[in-house]
Amino acid sequence: MTKEKKSALQEKGGVSISEITNRKSIENLKQKRKVKLDAKTLLTDILQGDVAALSRGITLVESVNSKHIAIGNKLLKTCLPYANKSIRIGITGVPGVGKSTFIEAFGKHLTSQGKRVAVLAIDPTSSITKGSILGDKTRMEALVKDENAFIRPSPSGHSLGGVARKTRESIVLCEAAGFDIIIIETVGVGQSETTVHSMVDFFLLLKLSGAGDELQGIKRGIIEMADAIVINKADGDNEKKAKFAANEFSRALKLYPEKESKWSPKVSVCSALNHVGITLIWSMITDYICVTTKNGHFDIKRQKQNKFWLIQTIESQLKSDFFNQPKIKKALESQLILIENNHTTPFAAAEFLLKLKA
Amino acid sequence: MTKEKKSALQEKGGVSISEITNRKSIENLKQKRKVKLDAKTLLTDILQGDVAALSRGITLVESVNSKHIAIGNKLLKTCLPYANKSIRIGITGVPGVGKSTFIEAFGKHLTSQGKRVAVLAIDPTSSITKGSILGDKTRMEALVKDENAFIRPSPSGHSLGGVARKTRESIVLCEAAGFDIIIIETVGVGQSETTVHSMVDFFLLLKLSGAGDELQGIKRGIIEMADAIVINKADGDNEKKAKFAANEFSRALKLYPEKESKWSPKVSVCSALNHVGITLIWSMITDYICVTTKNGHFDIKRQKQNKFWLIQTIESQLKSDFFNQPKIKKALESQLILIENNHTTPFAAAEFLLKLKA
Repeated sequence: MTKEKKSALQEKGGVSISEITNRKSIENLKQKRKVKLDAKTLLTDILQGDVAALSRGITLVESVNSKHIAIGNKLLKTCLPYANKSIRIGITGVPGVGKSTFIEAFGKHLTSQGKRVAVLAIDPTSSITKGSILGDKTRMEALVKDENAFIRPSPSGHSLGGVARKTRESIVLCEAAGFDIIIIETVGVGQSETTVHSMVDFFLLLKLSGAGDELQGIKRGIIEMADAIVINKADGDNEKKAKFAANEFSRALKLYPEKESKWSPKVSVCSALNHVGITLIWSMITDYICVTTKNGHFDIKRQKQNKFWLIQTIESQLKSDFFNQPKIKKALESQLILIENNHTTPFAAAEFLLKLKA
Repeated sequence: MTKEKKSALQEKGGVSISEITNRKSIENLKQKRKVKLDAKTLLTDILQGDVAALSRGITLVESVNSKHIAIGNKLLKTCLPYANKSIRIGITGVPGVGKSTFIEAFGKHLTSQGKRVAVLAIDPTSSITKGSILGDKTRMEALVKDENAFIRPSPSGHSLGGVARKTRESIVLCEAAGFDIIIIETVGVGQSETTVHSMVDFFLLLKLSGAGDELQGIKRGIIEMADAIVINKADGDNEKKAKFAANEFSRALKLYPEKESKWSPKVSVCSALNHVGITLIWSMITDYICVTTKNGHFDIKRQKQNKFWLIQTIESQLKSDFFNQPKIKKALESQLILIENNHTTPFAAAEFLLKLKA
């Protein structure tokens, strides 16, 4: 047997077939294995909450193999009527802020209330070998063992767009499998927070208390996106500092214009390690769901997100179709030099390039 | 003679030609008039600082007539080597903040120092009859009379993109005409601040002191763009409130991450009406120019802006080429309904639409 296993969908090398093996039964076995990848069977299993089937489904959705993609798309389509029923929570924070510890404490709190929790991740830097799953699985030990929890690492992919799409589609499958809460975690590389923000109902920013100047160094635009800022590691000597930081953030948040959802972002402290403050955070999120369901914004936001993904996917395809043409690449370079030397305007250069379009 | 004059480039109706008129001399006259619209002559006149020629040049650039556009493009191209030499300042603020009074006081201060000042505007809501020129010309009386000042209203156009392009190109002509300072004013409708921000070196936000909660109601993203916030109408009873507001803003600005330019946005108070605080604002801007010229960011920013306009123009053309196809419009509507009813995903819908592409 080969030791390396690149994908759950890949057949193992296996032992060589001896002459006395019943070839027919092998065919049967192969047929049976194939059946497992049949969209209809997978759907039935997923709808029953079968986590193994869910895993296989997500693997299909994440695949680059065209056959698998076709089955994945079929599966997605049939799962859609059962989707849309969870609460989607985005969680971000710099490395070291205690995201895994927080998600474990938060997830355990939810499963103890009978909820089923799925944890997905968006990490555009992850690869199959160097994914966040290993880290998460060791760090979220209690949640991994919890039968009401499902943890899935970030799909690997070259572009954030690709990773995002796979995660967005995995949400559909998790919802069809009956998960009540979907947590999407991100490490905050590049535009990944914006990406997560555009696929969740509630966006939570995890922070640490710092040296007093709390908002310095926060990435541009993150505060505007946050529905809550939670200062983690509010334990021991840190507790006082954390409360001070919370005040600072509360003050800062007031300076921002009101959100369309009419929700005023909240600030909270917690110690994920000691499981302190977790209940409050969950009650804050249920408040949010109440407020936005009542004023209609919950559904409006999801519709807007769907439209965003539709337009976004089209636009990025149109752009890459254009800018990836070798002749455009070459001409763009020379036009930029002409602009730099004041020999053409950006508008004249744009017209020139558009005329080259295939 | 017709009373209405839709464009400076349009021939007037004129009186009917009597039989005794020398037809040859009329031809000569017409020829002479045509010559005025010749790019080469215009260039010569503009380079000599001829404001009438500059006006005509801008009218050509703003025209929708294809002949005029052709001459305008030629003129632009020949003006380019003489462009790029001014300081471009963007000024925004809600109606009532005193933009015109400020620009007049500021402009007069600059001309009194021997500078030549051009004031352009971006107002996507303006039209030929309802432009901001009438307002500006009455409000900026002293500046209008100043021979070192040139005031031009917002070009009319249906889209912000169109208006922006015309203004961006007018800057080139103003610079070729030897203007040292180009002020671009905007009323702040829609995305117009972002548009102005992407064509200026320095972006100034005019504010009034309010009821204490100064940052409430400021449009998202404006603060991040500002290189300076100036509290106007700091006169009489307002002076104290204005200083309080300035403190509030200073505090808030510290909460934002450092700008690429390494420039920390400044807060200042002024009374444009009483010409108080204007000198300080100008010295703040010259400081900015010093700092960013020294660290290279002044040129980097302009290069980035040029690239932005190039890519922006291409992308918006690609999008409008796609989304304006009648069959795409129709299919988009039905795909959105399918998404809304959970019958398709945004990604599958995007693929479907892209396949319809002409």
